[in-house]
Amino acid sequence: MSNAVALATPVAETSRYPMEAFLADIGDVPWSREPTDLKRKSRDYYWYSPILAEQLKDKIADVIVTPRDEADVLRVVAACYRHRIPLTPRAGATGNYGQCVPMEGGVVLDMAEMNKIEWQKPGRVRVQAGAKLFDIDAQTRPNGWELRMHPSTKRMSQIGGFVAGGSGGVGSVTYGGMREPGNILAARVVSMEENPRVYELRGDAAQKISRAYGTTGIITALEMPLAPAYDWIDVVVAFDDFHEAIRFGQAIAMADGVIKKILAPIEWPLPENFAALKPYCPEGKSVLLAMIGEMSIDTFETLLESYGGTLTYKTPSEDVLNKVPLYEHTWNHCTLQMFKVDRAITYLQVLYPHERIIESVAEIGAKFKGEVMQHLEFIRINGLMTASGIPVIRYSTPERLYEIMDAFEAADIKIANPHVITLEDGSRYKRVDADQLGFKHEVDPLGLLNPGKMRSFTPKHEDVLR
Amino acid sequence: MSNAVALATPVAETSRYPMEAFLADIGDVPWSREPTDLKRKSRDYYWYSPILAEQLKDKIADVIVTPRDEADVLRVVAACYRHRIPLTPRAGATGNYGQCVPMEGGVVLDMAEMNKIEWQKPGRVRVQAGAKLFDIDAQTRPNGWELRMHPSTKRMSQIGGFVAGGSGGVGSVTYGGMREPGNILAARVVSMEENPRVYELRGDAAQKISRAYGTTGIITALEMPLAPAYDWIDVVVAFDDFHEAIRFGQAIAMADGVIKKILAPIEWPLPENFAALKPYCPEGKSVLLAMIGEMSIDTFETLLESYGGTLTYKTPSEDVLNKVPLYEHTWNHCTLQMFKVDRAITYLQVLYPHERIIESVAEIGAKFKGEVMQHLEFIRINGLMTASGIPVIRYSTPERLYEIMDAFEAADIKIANPHVITLEDGSRYKRVDADQLGFKHEVDPLGLLNPGKMRSFTPKHEDVLR
Repeated sequence: MSNAVALATPVAETSRYPMEAFLADIGDVPWSREPTDLKRKSRDYYWYSPILAEQLKDKIADVIVTPRDEADVLRVVAACYRHRIPLTPRAGATGNYGQCVPMEGGVVLDMAEMNKIEWQKPGRVRVQAGAKLFDIDAQTRPNGWELRMHPSTKRMSQIGGFVAGGSGGVGSVTYGGMREPGNILAARVVSMEENPRVYELRGDAAQKISRAYGTTGIITALEMPLAPAYDWIDVVVAFDDFHEAIRFGQAIAMADGVIKKILAPIEWPLPENFAALKPYCPEGKSVLLAMIGEMSIDTFETLLESYGGTLTYKTPSEDVLNKVPLYEHTWNHCTLQMFKVDRAITYLQVLYPHERIIESVAEIGAKFKGEVMQHLEFIRINGLMTASGIPVIRYSTPERLYEIMDAFEAADIKIANPHVITLEDGSRYKRVDADQLGFKHEVDPLGLLNPGKMRSFTPKHEDVLR
Repeated sequence: MSNAVALATPVAETSRYPMEAFLADIGDVPWSREPTDLKRKSRDYYWYSPILAEQLKDKIADVIVTPRDEADVLRVVAACYRHRIPLTPRAGATGNYGQCVPMEGGVVLDMAEMNKIEWQKPGRVRVQAGAKLFDIDAQTRPNGWELRMHPSTKRMSQIGGFVAGGSGGVGSVTYGGMREPGNILAARVVSMEENPRVYELRGDAAQKISRAYGTTGIITALEMPLAPAYDWIDVVVAFDDFHEAIRFGQAIAMADGVIKKILAPIEWPLPENFAALKPYCPEGKSVLLAMIGEMSIDTFETLLESYGGTLTYKTPSEDVLNKVPLYEHTWNHCTLQMFKVDRAITYLQVLYPHERIIESVAEIGAKFKGEVMQHLEFIRINGLMTASGIPVIRYSTPERLYEIMDAFEAADIKIANPHVITLEDGSRYKRVDADQLGFKHEVDPLGLLNPGKMRSFTPKHEDVLR
């Protein structure tokens, strides 16, 4: 049932929330309570984790609301506050930790219709939060610009979800993660209050909504910095030895004169699962996948000569919807490619120590041969080049998974646990940013926004009584 | 006398070389033996060094030859080889170590007329070696691109001289120095042989001519990678304490999401000499000079809030010939600004250790208060952010200068001695690149190119006998 037929059919009160009153309050804002919609739009890709798959499988929204503009958002928010109904924003739902799963039911706010590019200038773009990353790049590239970074899910993801997830991705080898200062220029945010306010968070203040899963206000628009849209060359280099792939990747990573967007060393047998790259991933070889700026490709190849790799693929990047891009074999897409042929796996998210990347990779490799398959992404963090990784793991039990996690930490590899739903547990630092917690009290005093995700937050007594 | 009148007046054989035969061989290639030309075009800015000022003051060319194209270069080179006359290429002559001073007299090859932009494409430009950096940027910026880096002498320097000098400059905070792989795409080079050959050195091979002062072939054309031409904002921030200026500069340096082209902390009293920036350099304050990408300026200012600085100047960069640009207060222009008011100074070129920049600055500061005035340039080297510096030194004697140099090295600060003329002595590594030395034997077997600059080179016996 949706509001197309709402006037004809009263809503059954199967919810613990006063849905009928809520729906009356939001008027003509589009919504749906169709069971297939509720089910489909209460999920993301959390099923990569067998632990989350179990934990989140029954979480379901009471209604999916699809605002057309910010006025709709304000109306929905006011109604939620009035009736004390939780609201969980939803973007492309390509995340892996239940970021948009409504833990307490209530409203899922589907941002898909707020997808306009508001304006673009050299080096900047302003978009509504529901704009797809793919569409943003498609509209900025003709002007010589593109987003600085995108997840491997670029063809489906929306900018609001990516920023609220706050990690990084393709492009972070140059610009660092989303949380590096300057990687979000401004965010427009709606508070969850009786009289919702609209905040324009500029400069570093915009970090208050980065990696907060929408718990610190509903993002309605974003101003993002752009990178020059180089002509990218997709490259595959095959190596006998995984460590050689890392060594060469690191040499390119550290060469600031070589323009790159991806540098991903991937251990055999992971490349075995790359259907679209099959001819370029020889049996038994580890590979380096890379996106290299066209003007840097000669240098890349010259440098390769002093390493043991073989260039098997070199083709201009073509970022089109109907073709599997190179980047859909990196980051967590590497896991997805393996899921297609083997469901008995899961993964971790790790950060290797920057001064001993190869040593720590080797330590894990020796300890979990055949059970842990590593692939790295060179990225900058706090001004230092290092490597993150999303090792694929043959899954047996939660206990064994925790054992493996302990071994990573013992090898000085930091873990951002992807098998948990809270911001704190999923963080490398096991805590939420102090600024974000303070801002949370300001914009969502009752904790109605995406409840269950910010563990450190408890509403203040005076706010609850208000 | 020049070849305009050469036919009428025979050349007096005051030279140790057979100039008359040489001039007959080069035909209509323009040349001059006018004493004012010879004097003016045998110098660069080596007088910054009191030691070089003494050592080089009498070095003078026998003839200045100004080729119009590569065919002219080939003709001149063949004639030089035939008559065993040394040839020293000259570009903008803005260097400080006698790079283009003809130690053995002979021919100075003035590249100024070979100044064409051959073509430009997104991210690349191909130019003749004598093109001015200023002119290259002026022609590429309308297309959204600019050179990745330039010296503070951009308004006078030529690309060939900059590449042959091989250091770095404004822009190296992002792209590293000229010698980082990928910062030169290709070089076209003429060898000094009986039958001169033309080499096209592509990719990393082009490094054979970087920081070789033209000893490894005469550069006639260069293909350079371009950077996006951001809208730059010139910024001055004043700090009570020099170390605070460094600390903030380093925070911005390490923030990969903040686009920058200069980050130069400058110790008081050096800013006292900045006539063009006088109103923005308060008495007694150290400053940070910066060029920040327009889209990053909000973030820059937000980050500044947690440091003790005061923004005194913030204006869009205007790179025009008739106005002193901000960057003409950084790098060795900082020394020049002081020379204008005080001639009793000299300078060093140093590289601070990247993990203890402030500590080593403090060590020197405490030891040579009032005698050594430090200013830094954040730059990337081998993938790590660090700081180079060109400390200004109140000059007394060579012995005292060497004492100060010893103290820098004792503080773990590397020195590239600017008071010497050879590539080896001026290098932080005190040696010439092995590849360059090998290539030297190939392209200049007799050592006629810029003699005296590559100390490690001795012609092979069989080459001399040939």
